[in-house]
Amino acid sequence: MAVEALFFDVFGTLADWRTSIARETKAILSPLGHDKVDWLAFADAWRGEYQPGMEEVRSGKIPFSKLDVLHRRNLERILPRFNLKGLSEDTLRNLNLAWHRLDTWPDVAPGLVRLKKRMRLAPVSNGNISLMVDIARRNALPWDAILGAEIAGDYKPKPRVYLSAAAAFDLDPGDCMMVAAHSNDLKAAAAQGLRTAHIARPNEHGPNTGESAPKVPTDYAAKSLEDLATQLGL
Amino acid sequence: MAVEALFFDVFGTLADWRTSIARETKAILSPLGHDKVDWLAFADAWRGEYQPGMEEVRSGKIPFSKLDVLHRRNLERILPRFNLKGLSEDTLRNLNLAWHRLDTWPDVAPGLVRLKKRMRLAPVSNGNISLMVDIARRNALPWDAILGAEIAGDYKPKPRVYLSAAAAFDLDPGDCMMVAAHSNDLKAAAAQGLRTAHIARPNEHGPNTGESAPKVPTDYAAKSLEDLATQLGL
Repeated sequence: MAVEALFFDVFGTLADWRTSIARETKAILSPLGHDKVDWLAFADAWRGEYQPGMEEVRSGKIPFSKLDVLHRRNLERILPRFNLKGLSEDTLRNLNLAWHRLDTWPDVAPGLVRLKKRMRLAPVSNGNISLMVDIARRNALPWDAILGAEIAGDYKPKPRVYLSAAAAFDLDPGDCMMVAAHSNDLKAAAAQGLRTAHIARPNEHGPNTGESAPKVPTDYAAKSLEDLATQLGL
Repeated sequence: MAVEALFFDVFGTLADWRTSIARETKAILSPLGHDKVDWLAFADAWRGEYQPGMEEVRSGKIPFSKLDVLHRRNLERILPRFNLKGLSEDTLRNLNLAWHRLDTWPDVAPGLVRLKKRMRLAPVSNGNISLMVDIARRNALPWDAILGAEIAGDYKPKPRVYLSAAAAFDLDPGDCMMVAAHSNDLKAAAAQGLRTAHIARPNEHGPNTGESAPKVPTDYAAKSLEDLATQLGL
C-alpha cells in the first residue's frame, strides 16, 4: 500500500468549529449589547443549516456558490431565532468571516508536519479556497495545495469532489487517502476508490457527541493526526 | 497601497528551468548512450515549443490541457532534432517529469518566507497543480494555495487567469500584485487591474539574455525576491 496523497476533511476533523464560532460570534456581538445569547447554541444552529444549504447546490436547485456565500445566507436564516436584529452590513460580514478564524485541534499542525514528509497533503473540504487559506495561516497548516469543493464546483459527498482532487495531483484514486472524522465522508470517498482513515473527534458537537470510531470499514482508525502519522510509520 | 496577495510567475521568475532541464535530461539520457547531445540546446528547444503549444489552447484550437500534456507533446516534437529515437514510454514519462524537478534561484525560498508574513502567496503560473506542488516540495516554497492556469482553465496572458486567482482569494484585482521576470506577463496583469513587480533574471536563457529591468511601467522593480521583501518593508 503506497499512499501518495492525503486529503483532509476540515470542519470537525481538523477544526474545532463549535467553540471557535461561539467565541468569535460572542466577541463581535456581545460588545454591541447582544449578551444574552447562548453562543454554543448559536454555533450549532448556524452549523445546522450547513447540509441543507449545500444540498440545494448538490441537487442542482441553485448553481455552485462558495461556502462563504452559503454561510452568509444561513446566518441570515438563524439570526431571528436568537432575536438578533438590525445588524450592520459590516457586522454581518465580520460574523461570516468567523469561519475563517477557526482553531484546529492541538494534534493537527504537528501531525501534518510529520505526514508531509512522505505524502502530499491537501484539504478536500467543502470550504472555499480563501477560507481554507485563512485557517491554514492562523494555525500554520503546511498544505501542498488547496483542493476540494471550489476546485470541483460541487460539494461532498458528490463523487467529483474526491475524483477532481486525485486528478489535480495526477494520481489514481487508490493512491490517495481521505482522512475524516465522519463516516459518511469516508464511505463516499471509498466508493470512488480512495483509501480511508478515520480520526476520532468525540467532542465535535460538545462532549461525547462525535464519532469516537468509524461506522464503516476503513483502512485506518486513529485517535489523532499524530496517531495516524505513527501508524503510517512517520 | 495595501497589497494583500502576491501572485508569482514560476518558470524563469522563480525557477531556473534552463540549467535544471539540461541537468535532468542529461541524467536520464546519458546513461542510455545518448551522450553527444548539447543539453542546454535541448532545454532551449523544449522551452521553445512552450508558447506555440499554449497558443493552441488560448486560440481555442484545442481544449484546455494541463501543461504536463503540452510538455509531452512538445518533447516528442523536438526529439528527432537531436537524433533521439526509440526511447521507451518509461523514459519519455520520466523526461517529461524533469519539469517537476526544477531548482529555484537561491533568493526564492528565503524571500517567500519573508513575504508570507504579511501577504497571501500563490503561484499564478501556466504550470499545472502537481507540477507546482513538486517544485514547491523540492525547494521548500511556502505557498498558501496553488492558483494559475489549471484553476482558470486557460493560459496566461489570458485575463481570466489573473482574475480567477484574485477571485479565489476573494480579493479585488487591485489588492493583488503579479510578480514576474517577464514584462509581457506584467503588462497583461496590469491590464486587469493588478499591481505589478518585476524581478530581474538576467541569466534566464543563459548569461545576459533575460530582462534585467522591466520594459513596461511597474509598481516595483527588484533584483530578487529578497530585494522585493525589503522594498515592501519586510
